[in-house]
Amino acid sequence: MRSVSVIGIGETKFGRFPERSLKDLILEAGAKAIDDSGIGREDIGALFMSNYNAQGFSGQGHLGPLAAEVLGLGNVPTLRVEGACASGSLAFRQALSAVASGMYDVVLVGGVEKMTHQSTEAVTAGLAGASDMELEAGLGATFPSIFAMIANRYFHEYGNVRDEMALCAVQNHDHALLNPDAQLQKRITVEQVKNGLPIAHPFTIFDCSLVSDGAAFVVLAATDVAKAVCRKRLVEVVGCGQAGDTVTLAAKKSMTTFAATVHAAKQAYGMAGIKPAQIDLAEVHDCFTITQIINSEDLGFFAKGKGAAAVAEGKTAAHGLMPINVSGGLKAKGHPIGATGLSQIYEIVTQLRGEGDARQLKKADIGLTHNIGGTAATCVVSIFRGR
Amino acid sequence: MRSVSVIGIGETKFGRFPERSLKDLILEAGAKAIDDSGIGREDIGALFMSNYNAQGFSGQGHLGPLAAEVLGLGNVPTLRVEGACASGSLAFRQALSAVASGMYDVVLVGGVEKMTHQSTEAVTAGLAGASDMELEAGLGATFPSIFAMIANRYFHEYGNVRDEMALCAVQNHDHALLNPDAQLQKRITVEQVKNGLPIAHPFTIFDCSLVSDGAAFVVLAATDVAKAVCRKRLVEVVGCGQAGDTVTLAAKKSMTTFAATVHAAKQAYGMAGIKPAQIDLAEVHDCFTITQIINSEDLGFFAKGKGAAAVAEGKTAAHGLMPINVSGGLKAKGHPIGATGLSQIYEIVTQLRGEGDARQLKKADIGLTHNIGGTAATCVVSIFRGR
Repeated sequence: MRSVSVIGIGETKFGRFPERSLKDLILEAGAKAIDDSGIGREDIGALFMSNYNAQGFSGQGHLGPLAAEVLGLGNVPTLRVEGACASGSLAFRQALSAVASGMYDVVLVGGVEKMTHQSTEAVTAGLAGASDMELEAGLGATFPSIFAMIANRYFHEYGNVRDEMALCAVQNHDHALLNPDAQLQKRITVEQVKNGLPIAHPFTIFDCSLVSDGAAFVVLAATDVAKAVCRKRLVEVVGCGQAGDTVTLAAKKSMTTFAATVHAAKQAYGMAGIKPAQIDLAEVHDCFTITQIINSEDLGFFAKGKGAAAVAEGKTAAHGLMPINVSGGLKAKGHPIGATGLSQIYEIVTQLRGEGDARQLKKADIGLTHNIGGTAATCVVSIFRGR
Repeated sequence: MRSVSVIGIGETKFGRFPERSLKDLILEAGAKAIDDSGIGREDIGALFMSNYNAQGFSGQGHLGPLAAEVLGLGNVPTLRVEGACASGSLAFRQALSAVASGMYDVVLVGGVEKMTHQSTEAVTAGLAGASDMELEAGLGATFPSIFAMIANRYFHEYGNVRDEMALCAVQNHDHALLNPDAQLQKRITVEQVKNGLPIAHPFTIFDCSLVSDGAAFVVLAATDVAKAVCRKRLVEVVGCGQAGDTVTLAAKKSMTTFAATVHAAKQAYGMAGIKPAQIDLAEVHDCFTITQIINSEDLGFFAKGKGAAAVAEGKTAAHGLMPINVSGGLKAKGHPIGATGLSQIYEIVTQLRGEGDARQLKKADIGLTHNIGGTAATCVVSIFRGR
């Protein structure tokens, strides 16, 4: 397997865009990534698309060739990958493998989701399709209720961390203030979070990630090829791991340790030869506040049961010891599902290149992305290193 | 890239099964394939799932980990691939690449679709999502109408082949009579086809493939590993090509030559070092009768404009010079979309192993599968050789 690097990134602003179609979002983010890479369309060997549910939300399937047509890529092979909220990272991993194996020298990988034109009920039902329709969603369980059960179990095992969860949301909102692509750019307080609209105890609306429209694209190239064309700091993909777990919460061995995260992280760290303490920044899946806290432990950044305290101690803030979600995360940057995993990579590459402007970290040489699908039934962890 | 072989196959009967769930279909076909392979569940490195629209038809997304949970595969990495009616072959190609590259030694790839519980209107709308929702389906174009335009254009360019199209359906029905997994097992006549319920001129109901429930799975292994475990004739994947084309019919350079088929076939033949005349049998995408005829030309079996005559001359019949769709094809075996491409492979492997019972061909050493998505916007061609 040969070394692969990211040579181009592009994303749309995330938000509510009733005037923009799926094709419009694809065109903006895809063209930005291609332009950023310095390569021509004729050099792209394949297109890997990520999308969760455009069939449900807009009636549109077959997004691979649709995106290729919009972007003018001719007869390139395409496909769409879906793995719930981890779809973007799964498409990235397939693209990575295709270049690493020597199958293609340069590939484009993109993700898109358009959700805000649907009613809250329709979006909630569409999202619930990432759980088990017979055993969970069909009985009325939606993701806020499933992750609320996880939060309550976490309280039982490690103590009540309601305040720290709220602070996690506050921090991600603070981060998003400096990200021009973020959907929400407003400061919130711990009191606002705790007194927000109740969703599923202990969550209020401020513990939940956003419903968003948006797209994000990445161009990958064999590092040897990348060196010849890349005009910016080369960002090498040094590690990538993937693991799964049961879809149903009831079948999992633990509710407060995500086995898929643990396994995927172990693979990624092993491949990279890097320890958690060496990571300068991470984008960690935060569909709910408790999710970020649990994942930050399962990724090895903090000891089990200590993830909440780390938030309270400011370790996860932008200029803390282990900055998490300096983009604003799913919570404040937004969560257009198919685009999310690729937008995490967009942020890491931006920081590793030193292009973060107002939100640029002082030290950003090694970054990690972590993306889960459903109740952590799918997980991809990737590690990037600036060269 | 190392050699890869098929070591296990399994499928359900195709048909209308209101009593069977997605999980039930997955369990039957997946367990059959694993049992057939002789390997244990612990040897499976990854699961690649194919499905077109369970989100739309049943509300169920995230089929990768759902299938892994049903089949007891633990924490294996999974994903779902979608590329309209070519989803199954796309998942197969991803699985093939993952083994060929050395990433995994043994992988499972499966496809499933459950459609018959939906109304004809809902299924037609769900399928139309594989066209362009803004420029085609949104204006009322469904796939029967799109392929009817293609048929009429074919008549304009090469002469009226209405009778030969009808005979194509008759042949595939004849083939299905000998396939116990086929959905339709009844003989039809050319007159019945021509006088059937009109769908979109020149198509009657008998020119159209079926709406079906079903699943199909394949186990792939590195050939070196396969030799140690496979108790049956080893079937090596000697060629695989993939290409795309525009989604919209209006943007295509030709309506009667499918560019994606031409490009994918060229890649597959080149990789295999095999010419069309060496193929002993082929499963060719026949969503409509005209589709099989055009594809049989684009695959190089017959000269352009001569595919219909080849049907009339009996060349494509089970014991003709170039047997096509001896399984019954999408037309009579059925078309549970996510399973279709993998069921094509099931048939080729069955024949190459000599396990075709009543429908076994005398000579079956090299077989080809051809699968398109949408208006031939996605195409995968694979070539298999018995060792």
